[in-house]
Amino acid sequence: MSISKQDIIDAFWFRHACKEFDVAKPVSREDFDFILETARLSPSSFGLEPWKFLVVQNPDLREKLRQYTWGGQLQLPTASYVLVALLRKSAFMRYDSPYIQNFMRQVQNLSELACKIRTSILEKFQADDFDLLNSERSMADWSARQTYLPLANMMTAAALIGIDTCPIEGFDQNSLENLLAKELGIDRQGWGVAYLLAFGYRKADPNWPKTRQPIDNIVEWFE
Amino acid sequence: MSISKQDIIDAFWFRHACKEFDVAKPVSREDFDFILETARLSPSSFGLEPWKFLVVQNPDLREKLRQYTWGGQLQLPTASYVLVALLRKSAFMRYDSPYIQNFMRQVQNLSELACKIRTSILEKFQADDFDLLNSERSMADWSARQTYLPLANMMTAAALIGIDTCPIEGFDQNSLENLLAKELGIDRQGWGVAYLLAFGYRKADPNWPKTRQPIDNIVEWFE
Repeated sequence: MSISKQDIIDAFWFRHACKEFDVAKPVSREDFDFILETARLSPSSFGLEPWKFLVVQNPDLREKLRQYTWGGQLQLPTASYVLVALLRKSAFMRYDSPYIQNFMRQVQNLSELACKIRTSILEKFQADDFDLLNSERSMADWSARQTYLPLANMMTAAALIGIDTCPIEGFDQNSLENLLAKELGIDRQGWGVAYLLAFGYRKADPNWPKTRQPIDNIVEWFE
Repeated sequence: MSISKQDIIDAFWFRHACKEFDVAKPVSREDFDFILETARLSPSSFGLEPWKFLVVQNPDLREKLRQYTWGGQLQLPTASYVLVALLRKSAFMRYDSPYIQNFMRQVQNLSELACKIRTSILEKFQADDFDLLNSERSMADWSARQTYLPLANMMTAAALIGIDTCPIEGFDQNSLENLLAKELGIDRQGWGVAYLLAFGYRKADPNWPKTRQPIDNIVEWFE
């Protein structure tokens, strides 16, 4: 590999929450497929990929999404691609669900013995550590955290090839999920919305410079 | 920038949850500082950086951490660096906390007028969208999700320069946080543990190939 650290750091400085995209300069499908591939290859707890990504290109649908989000008013209509990230809820993610049991066999190619062992470890994790099994909400939170891994990777991968993004975390969850159920047939029992992510090329440079705490404020060493 | 998409995809294939690191081949401090810099530059909701990273190098302390984690038995003693990621809880993250008010002024360099506007947007977000203000737990979950962004970025940045990682999500939260309070003076009222992340060079190649669902299983288009 021939990637320099400085090129990577430059990409982190390049990335910002882009407020408006250049509609005259669309992102190529090839580049977007590359970005989606970094989401697909992202890690997750037990490798269970508790996510799904809807790419919403239909302008009417984007306009409806826009009504229930804030911080996405200019981004949604101008983006080359708008992605809605869904998380898998408890019905899918319990150690004993058909989804998980099938996933271990069909995707992870585990032997029956390995499935049994993995299932018992997952059961222990879900029972002990965060009381996931007793709480729909804990299970959804667990999936949500995982779904932020492809979020970071998509933003970083885009920035590495000069493409801008805007993550959108502020939305009316209930109305947005009702909309997706009604318009796209997304089952609310199984799925929740984690975030939206818009892609494009910036129309203008950001209005203010990136700010961060100095490294000594966020890292403490114990030697 | 001269980063090829294939080099990036190769890094995603290179990354896996490394089970044991090569103690004879330490990661340089320069490379680790580069990885920490990608954490520092990671995005977060409202740019509020609700995190802190402890680098635990002391062998006795690592051994104590190891007692309360699982899935980190070989990683913790063999890693070049072990990082414990902390999230900021409600006491810090409420829109009206001294931390946030100071952060907007001292880190984000906002004018008094901009602080007022940003504060009222943050208040609305915390009050309306996820009922954060009424729930210690919701606020910690919100911070936890953000803290997964530098997690992904550190793993990806490491992989881009050929360094291995192992994220550790399975631990006894209460015992681990008590340990950090007792040994390192971490205030449990303000901080929670989000995850551990170990860094090093792999001792051996992984035992099984990476598996993922095909892209059509995780992406749906609406045009």
